[in-house]
Amino acid sequence: MEANAEQQIAELARRFLPDVEGCLREAIAESDDLAPMMRYHLGWENLEGAPASGGGKALRPVLCLAACEMSGGDWRDALPAAAGLELVHNFSLVHDDIQDGDETRRGTPTLWRVHGVPAALTAGNAMRVVADRTADGLSARGTAPEVARGTIAELTRRYLEMIEGQYLDLSFEAAEHVSVSDYLDMIGRKTGALIESAMHMGALVATGDPATARGFGECGMRLGLAFQVRDDYLGVWGDPAFTGKAVGADIRRKKKSLPAVYLFDSVPDDERSWLEETYRAEEIEGERLDGVMAMLERLGGGPYVQRIAEEQAQLAVVAVDALDIAEESKQLLGAVAEFFATRDR
Amino acid sequence: MEANAEQQIAELARRFLPDVEGCLREAIAESDDLAPMMRYHLGWENLEGAPASGGGKALRPVLCLAACEMSGGDWRDALPAAAGLELVHNFSLVHDDIQDGDETRRGTPTLWRVHGVPAALTAGNAMRVVADRTADGLSARGTAPEVARGTIAELTRRYLEMIEGQYLDLSFEAAEHVSVSDYLDMIGRKTGALIESAMHMGALVATGDPATARGFGECGMRLGLAFQVRDDYLGVWGDPAFTGKAVGADIRRKKKSLPAVYLFDSVPDDERSWLEETYRAEEIEGERLDGVMAMLERLGGGPYVQRIAEEQAQLAVVAVDALDIAEESKQLLGAVAEFFATRDR
Repeated sequence: MEANAEQQIAELARRFLPDVEGCLREAIAESDDLAPMMRYHLGWENLEGAPASGGGKALRPVLCLAACEMSGGDWRDALPAAAGLELVHNFSLVHDDIQDGDETRRGTPTLWRVHGVPAALTAGNAMRVVADRTADGLSARGTAPEVARGTIAELTRRYLEMIEGQYLDLSFEAAEHVSVSDYLDMIGRKTGALIESAMHMGALVATGDPATARGFGECGMRLGLAFQVRDDYLGVWGDPAFTGKAVGADIRRKKKSLPAVYLFDSVPDDERSWLEETYRAEEIEGERLDGVMAMLERLGGGPYVQRIAEEQAQLAVVAVDALDIAEESKQLLGAVAEFFATRDR
Repeated sequence: MEANAEQQIAELARRFLPDVEGCLREAIAESDDLAPMMRYHLGWENLEGAPASGGGKALRPVLCLAACEMSGGDWRDALPAAAGLELVHNFSLVHDDIQDGDETRRGTPTLWRVHGVPAALTAGNAMRVVADRTADGLSARGTAPEVARGTIAELTRRYLEMIEGQYLDLSFEAAEHVSVSDYLDMIGRKTGALIESAMHMGALVATGDPATARGFGECGMRLGLAFQVRDDYLGVWGDPAFTGKAVGADIRRKKKSLPAVYLFDSVPDDERSWLEETYRAEEIEGERLDGVMAMLERLGGGPYVQRIAEEQAQLAVVAVDALDIAEESKQLLGAVAEFFATRDR
C-alpha cells in the first residue's frame, strides 16, 4: 500500500528535523541574552524555561532538504539553508503577531504578549540575524563559496519579497478595492516567496546549477500558493473540528483573504452598499454574518476559491514535470501539491 | 592654519556623501512599495513626497570610506559597505522610535507616527534587507569574493551585537542595579559595534587583511564609545542652545544613561531611599529634579562622565597609533577622537 502525501511528508520530517533542530539550537545558543525568548517562541521551552514540545510544522526546511536530496545532493549539505529559512519564517511570525495584535499562537501566549512589544520586536530582529549567520555555515559544510553566496542571496531576495508582501497585505486591509490578481500577487510574495526559496536553495546547494534551482523554485512558489489559498478556504469553510475556528471565522473578523476579495469583486451592484456597510462594522456577527455567508454561497465563493487552490496545485505539477528528477520524486511532489490544495487542517 | 576635526569630517562628508546617497537611492528604488517610507525616514522627502533636505550626519559611512582610503584603498570600492551600514543604522532608528514611542526625529514626525506601527515596523525590516542587497554589491565593484564575504559577515556580526545592545538597554531600564562596566558593555554593543564595523569593513575592502581590519575596528569601537559617553554627558549638562534640550533633560525622563548609572552606583547609603523614591515617579520634576542635579554635582557626576568619554578617546588614539598608516591620517583620527569626546552638539 502506498503511503499518502501527508504520511510521506511526516516521514521526511522524521528523517530531517532532528538535524534541523540541532542546527537551530547551535545557532541560537550563540546569541545568549535573547536565546530564551527565541526558544520560547519556537515552542521548545515554556514560560518558566522548562522544556516543552511545541513547535510548528517546519514545512520550509523539509521542502528545502527534500529538494536537495531529489536533485542528487546529500540533504545534510543544505542544513544551514534550511535552518536559516526556518529562523526567517519565525522572525516573520514574531513580527506578524505584533502587527496583528494576536495574543496566542499554537495555544500559548505570543512573545510580545509575554515580554512586551519592544523586547519581542528586538528578539524577532535577532532571529533574522541568527538566520544570516546560520546560512553562512554553508561553506563550512563544503558548499563552494560561489554557490553558498548565491544561496544566501536567494534567501535575502525572497525575504525582501516576503516583507513587501506583508506590506501589501497591510495596505490591502485599508484599500477600497483589491483585485483577485493583486491578491494572488500579494500572497505569492508573502507566503510563496519563502517556500520558493526553500526549494530553490535546496536544489542550488545540491547542483550548483541556477537553472535547476529556478525550476525547483517555481515548484515551491506554486506549492506555496496552493497552500495559502487552501488556508483561505479553510478560514471560512473549514471544519471547526480540524481548524479550531468557527465556520466563517475569517469573514467575522473581516479578513481580506481570497473569499472576501472574490466577494467584493463579484457582488451585484444592488447589494454592494449593503456589503460595504456590513464591512464598516468592527466585527461581522449574527444576521449580517449569515447574510455574507449566504451571499458567498449564492455567488459560488467556496468552489471558486477551491478552484484557484487546485489550479495552483496543477501549476506545481507542471513545474515538477519539467524537472530532471526521478519519477518517484515527481510523484511525491505531485501528491504534496494535491495534499496542500485539499487538506482539512 | 590647520582645519579642526569638525571641519575635516565635514570635508570628508562633502567628498564621500554624494556617492553614498547615489548608492542608497539606487538600492531603495528597487524596493518599490516601501521606497516612499524609506525616503521619508532618510529625510529626502517630506510627507507629500516632495524633495526635502534633511538626513542625518552619516557618520558611519564617512568613517567606513575614510578607513578604506587611509589603509590604501580607493574609497569608492567600499561604497556598498558604507551604504549598507547607513541602511542598517536607519533600520535601527525606525525600530528604536517604535520601541521608545518617540514622536519626532530631526524635527519631523517619526515614521510610525505617520504610517502606524505595523507599516513602520515593516519598512524598517525592509531597510535591513535592502542593506544586505546593497552590501552584496561589493563583488560587482571588484572586491574579491572571499573579502566581500568576510565584509558582509562583519556587518552581520556587528548588527547582531547592536540588537543585543538594544535588548540589554531595554532590560537595564527595568533593572534594579546596573554597574558602570555593564553599562559600557551595553553601549559598546548598541552604539560601538556598528562604528567598529564601519572602520573594519572599510579597511578590509582596501587591504583584504583581517588583522589590519581588526585594528581599524578597535579604533572605531573606541570612537563609538567616546561619542556615546559624550552624548550621555550632553543629555544632562549640554548647553540647551546647542542640544535643543533643557539642562537635566535625560534626568527628567529618567534615562538610564551613564550619569544615572553613576549616581546609583555612588549614592551614599542614607540618601539611597530618597533617590529610589524619586525614580519611581513618572517623571522627575521641580525640586526633585534640582535635588538630583545637586546630588550629581556633589558626587562629581559631570567630571566623572566626561573623564570616561576622554578615556575612550585616549584608547582610540592608542588604537590609531598601532595602525600602519600615514602620520597625517593618524593625526586626523586622533583629532576626531578628541572632537567626539568634547563636542557641544
